[in-house]
Amino acid sequence: MTIRNIAGRRLAGAIAIAVSFVLAIASPIHAQTDPLPSWNDGAAKKAIIDLVTRTTTQGSADFVPEPERIATFDNDGTLWCEMPFYFQMAFAFDRIKAMAPQHPEWKTKQPFKALLQGDVATAAKAGEKGLLAIVAATHSGMTVPQFEGEVREWIRTARHPRFKRPYNELIYQPMLEVLNYLRANGFKTFIVSGGGMDFMRPWAPAAYGIPPQQIVGSSGVTQFRLNKEGKGELFKTAKVDFIDDGPGKPVGINRNIGRQPIIAFGNSDGDLQMLQYTSSGSGARLGLFVHHDDAVREYAYDRKSQIGKLDKGLNEAPKWGWPIISMKNDWKVIFPFEKQ
Amino acid sequence: MTIRNIAGRRLAGAIAIAVSFVLAIASPIHAQTDPLPSWNDGAAKKAIIDLVTRTTTQGSADFVPEPERIATFDNDGTLWCEMPFYFQMAFAFDRIKAMAPQHPEWKTKQPFKALLQGDVATAAKAGEKGLLAIVAATHSGMTVPQFEGEVREWIRTARHPRFKRPYNELIYQPMLEVLNYLRANGFKTFIVSGGGMDFMRPWAPAAYGIPPQQIVGSSGVTQFRLNKEGKGELFKTAKVDFIDDGPGKPVGINRNIGRQPIIAFGNSDGDLQMLQYTSSGSGARLGLFVHHDDAVREYAYDRKSQIGKLDKGLNEAPKWGWPIISMKNDWKVIFPFEKQ
Repeated sequence: MTIRNIAGRRLAGAIAIAVSFVLAIASPIHAQTDPLPSWNDGAAKKAIIDLVTRTTTQGSADFVPEPERIATFDNDGTLWCEMPFYFQMAFAFDRIKAMAPQHPEWKTKQPFKALLQGDVATAAKAGEKGLLAIVAATHSGMTVPQFEGEVREWIRTARHPRFKRPYNELIYQPMLEVLNYLRANGFKTFIVSGGGMDFMRPWAPAAYGIPPQQIVGSSGVTQFRLNKEGKGELFKTAKVDFIDDGPGKPVGINRNIGRQPIIAFGNSDGDLQMLQYTSSGSGARLGLFVHHDDAVREYAYDRKSQIGKLDKGLNEAPKWGWPIISMKNDWKVIFPFEKQ
Repeated sequence: MTIRNIAGRRLAGAIAIAVSFVLAIASPIHAQTDPLPSWNDGAAKKAIIDLVTRTTTQGSADFVPEPERIATFDNDGTLWCEMPFYFQMAFAFDRIKAMAPQHPEWKTKQPFKALLQGDVATAAKAGEKGLLAIVAATHSGMTVPQFEGEVREWIRTARHPRFKRPYNELIYQPMLEVLNYLRANGFKTFIVSGGGMDFMRPWAPAAYGIPPQQIVGSSGVTQFRLNKEGKGELFKTAKVDFIDDGPGKPVGINRNIGRQPIIAFGNSDGDLQMLQYTSSGSGARLGLFVHHDDAVREYAYDRKSQIGKLDKGLNEAPKWGWPIISMKNDWKVIFPFEKQ
């Protein structure tokens, strides 16, 4: 192919892009098609579309310039499933099993002993200290890219005990539509999760269309060092650095975003302060809780749950005007594979 | 104006945008015009243009997909001036003077006493402890938006002692061109500074075209709280959280960006590890040091300087293949106002 041909094809391609760009601007997104087709009509869907319309309509009293359109999403239980326990715990448990041959001492040491026997209940009795020991054993002592490689391999091979699918397929179709709808209207979408930043970044960009720099999460202390070949690398230590949960979420938002969100989605009391921070900004703001009330298609849990407890949040929601998203009633499908 | 007219004007505007978009794609940026007009031809300019060309040319062995095109910039001494001392220190000193009437105890307490007498040399003898006391007094005890308001007011009113201009005019014209050139070629530009994150965010977006979420810096511990009106806010405490300098820079890069940069600019030993981390990535990478060697137009300092010391960096640069940018020889102008 000659250079002239390449230039010609480039130009043709550019014109095609330009024309579709013109069409996209000329036809408002809301008018023709439903931006949230997996959502039943109801208060939650209406609140989302109203917020987007008010903040993106030129001349509206609530108009928000595009750079300030920030949307934040919790991950576990909001963008993907978190039962029977947080998927990052499933990753850690699988890693403990894979690493056991190199750690004969785990045969007699809790919580490792119980985990290796498949007895999660006993392992859980070791409490926070036990959990930190498991996290330290599986999330440190390696470089960031090495850890990311382990996460990628686990995502590729592990299967959810109930749905028998890779964990990254257990994301919520209605929330994917919200992400796309917000981005189509000039919002920047961020994950703000209590889960590990380094754990999410290897798979979340492909799952949600959210780039690594827009993924905020908990983290351990990393150390910069030059390796034997003289190359600079980041080494993951066992020390906890930042817990991006509860009151930590507004802190993480300020650190990695620097603006108060216009809209925020959560599903548990760990998201309460993120929603409060969001709703405390001036102008139109919206917080929403995903409520897990569908035991048939997914799981049903709230005030008494060990995982994803939603108690204070349910009490606070009416005061702040936060819609509760009923998975049972508001969502036509839960997972993308149900559509196929 | 009727809706029809608005739609018509919108369409016309969209077509104009689309046409310029086509023209931008059809004519390669390097060919016609010099992307770095304030730079003299030399090794540094050549290295920057070569790196951009290699990483953005389809089919090149060093091609980098657009989402991975990350560029990081130190701020003090790299994007703006840092003499006679860091501008954030000038802000802190001015705040001490402004706050003095509410703090009679400062009249007898160092380093406040010396500062209030205009004796920076004596104040500096209080060392790190004294500096932290000054930072604590001026950078905490208020909400993030309150602090940002104080920074904005200072930027509006304060003047540099030598150049008699607002501090945000003392940014480097050649580096603004690098920022624009990189962004025009699909790079995301980030600040990674030892300076305060909350100090930069109020003015840096307008100065450099870099949004708050792409400004990484040092920070104090912030706490989320509900104020008397029941609104959520972030309160700045006096406790240091994170020092984004030296080996902290790769850590800050991982935390807020999550990718190794393709190109990084610094000017002091505090940027050494950022450049090492950048150059340790696979494929084409580039680190560069701005060298302050122009006492006539700006300042000349390096190995022995208290501010912006560049010593190890000068030793390491040849080993890593990092060009040294001579402000005297490589830059036709230093500040944007020289062009006017």
